[in-house]
Amino acid sequence: MFTQEELLNCINGAIDTIAYPQSPFGLYEPIKYTLHGGGKRIRPVLTLAACTALGGNLDTSLNQALGIEMFHNFTLLHDDVMDNADVRRGRPTVHKKWNESTAILSGDTMLTMATQLVCKCSDLKLCHVIKLFNQTAIEVYEGQQYDMDFESRNDVAIEEYIEMIRLKTSVLLGCACKMGALMAGANDEICQSFYNYGVKLGLAFQLQDDYLDTYGDPKVFGKNIGGDILNDKKTWLLISALKEDETGELAKFIGNKNVEPQEKIHSVRAIYDKLNLAQRCHDLIDQYAQLAIAELENVDIPDESKDFFVNLALKSCRREN
Amino acid sequence: MFTQEELLNCINGAIDTIAYPQSPFGLYEPIKYTLHGGGKRIRPVLTLAACTALGGNLDTSLNQALGIEMFHNFTLLHDDVMDNADVRRGRPTVHKKWNESTAILSGDTMLTMATQLVCKCSDLKLCHVIKLFNQTAIEVYEGQQYDMDFESRNDVAIEEYIEMIRLKTSVLLGCACKMGALMAGANDEICQSFYNYGVKLGLAFQLQDDYLDTYGDPKVFGKNIGGDILNDKKTWLLISALKEDETGELAKFIGNKNVEPQEKIHSVRAIYDKLNLAQRCHDLIDQYAQLAIAELENVDIPDESKDFFVNLALKSCRREN
Repeated sequence: MFTQEELLNCINGAIDTIAYPQSPFGLYEPIKYTLHGGGKRIRPVLTLAACTALGGNLDTSLNQALGIEMFHNFTLLHDDVMDNADVRRGRPTVHKKWNESTAILSGDTMLTMATQLVCKCSDLKLCHVIKLFNQTAIEVYEGQQYDMDFESRNDVAIEEYIEMIRLKTSVLLGCACKMGALMAGANDEICQSFYNYGVKLGLAFQLQDDYLDTYGDPKVFGKNIGGDILNDKKTWLLISALKEDETGELAKFIGNKNVEPQEKIHSVRAIYDKLNLAQRCHDLIDQYAQLAIAELENVDIPDESKDFFVNLALKSCRREN
Repeated sequence: MFTQEELLNCINGAIDTIAYPQSPFGLYEPIKYTLHGGGKRIRPVLTLAACTALGGNLDTSLNQALGIEMFHNFTLLHDDVMDNADVRRGRPTVHKKWNESTAILSGDTMLTMATQLVCKCSDLKLCHVIKLFNQTAIEVYEGQQYDMDFESRNDVAIEEYIEMIRLKTSVLLGCACKMGALMAGANDEICQSFYNYGVKLGLAFQLQDDYLDTYGDPKVFGKNIGGDILNDKKTWLLISALKEDETGELAKFIGNKNVEPQEKIHSVRAIYDKLNLAQRCHDLIDQYAQLAIAELENVDIPDESKDFFVNLALKSCRREN
């Protein structure tokens, strides 16, 4: 079994060798900028890991891994336009560096390029591969729509939030795992187990992301802490607190532009602390990681492969960036 | 052979029966609004016509026809955001009726839904179908990028313009024709002839569109005349005139916001008239229509099918809306 670092190097090497057409320069330059901007590459690593764990080699699913990473970066590009975000991974976003039209059109191109990459497989596998990819894409858009819908709602239930992050984030990790299994030629049951592993891992992953936005170390996390609180973002923390805060204190901060930012972050976090939400959030993350691990328990793969996926799940809950 | 009206009715009937998920409402409602907003449906009609001319029946390529129409409407939706257009087919554009985020995300969803529709075919045909569709999509984006690039250039050559409209408009008509042929099980040579027919038809079609924007009857054309002139849009007319106008008069109007709109339209059209551009543009349109017709001359399809494609090409040059 390859290490995570080896798989990451394989992905980054492959990304570096993607050949873009020379023109129109204004279309392909922002794509290169986006895809080559770094990131954890967790999704393509999962694809390669699943595939090699099941007997495939690195090349077997490399195009699919790249396609999924391309898709993920396309969603970030368009999400940044929708959120009017200025910075991504420490650099100006595409719509800031170029303009909005460029961001929209380059994003569209990335989606089709992603589909092209994913489709680079045998005729026999193509129908399974494209079906999984398209279905996942639709779910990701639905998740993004729910996320935007939640902005104007103060009555979002925990279950709705979990379903939203399942769609927006988790199914793509599930897809990444299942794609590797599909390309290795695994049967339906094994494919489904890998899909379920990815989805549960994705839930742990996203909840940890939300946790770090409030409780992370800004130096390690790589972005400012408290953004979610300032934007009244309906995360597990806020939704839980809104439900449980009997003092009515929290509600006063929602939509309130008159509070000084640092004071708002400090006060809201104090309410979270009174409700012990940091600990409880982490318990939930651990639960999802354990559920992910359980999905692969009965799958017939080498022990060292199983260890890889167990460690990845455990690391995801402990990561600080 | 079915009449164009029968094929159109078949398409519109199928569009009416597309089942959208109930939620998230905010994602699917704008898609319905866009796709059900009418239009000529020329692309899906071409798919059905090619398929039935080659022995397929209406159902054989209906999903592919719908997918191509869905794709076309996705490009219009995103183009309207990029152009900041307020009105499409007499109704507010999606980003005006809802907002920009909705337009971007619903458009993304339409692209994936289009891919799903196109992929509804036998495993045997899938690899050809998806390859054609993806390649066409990439070319359409490239065409849109060139179109935007041309806005800030005054040295666009006629050949560059023809290549731009080939990419932005014509290849999708070529794809529509070839898709029908592919689904009917035609061989490579026949598929290529239908593709070439569609591309040439598309060039005639787009040049006629440009012509009507300057010389059409506003009551019949359905939108205001002279928009291209007011926006200094690099059409065949303007590019030809810029090259040939030795008085330097035309150049004074380009980028000039101080001229009253009706006067600008009147004056620029007067320059076009002096150069006999209306007639010459129409000669070029006729030439492309004849080139389209010639592509199908040696293809073995029933005479009445051939007549259908001949008449469609001739009508495209004479259409007034």
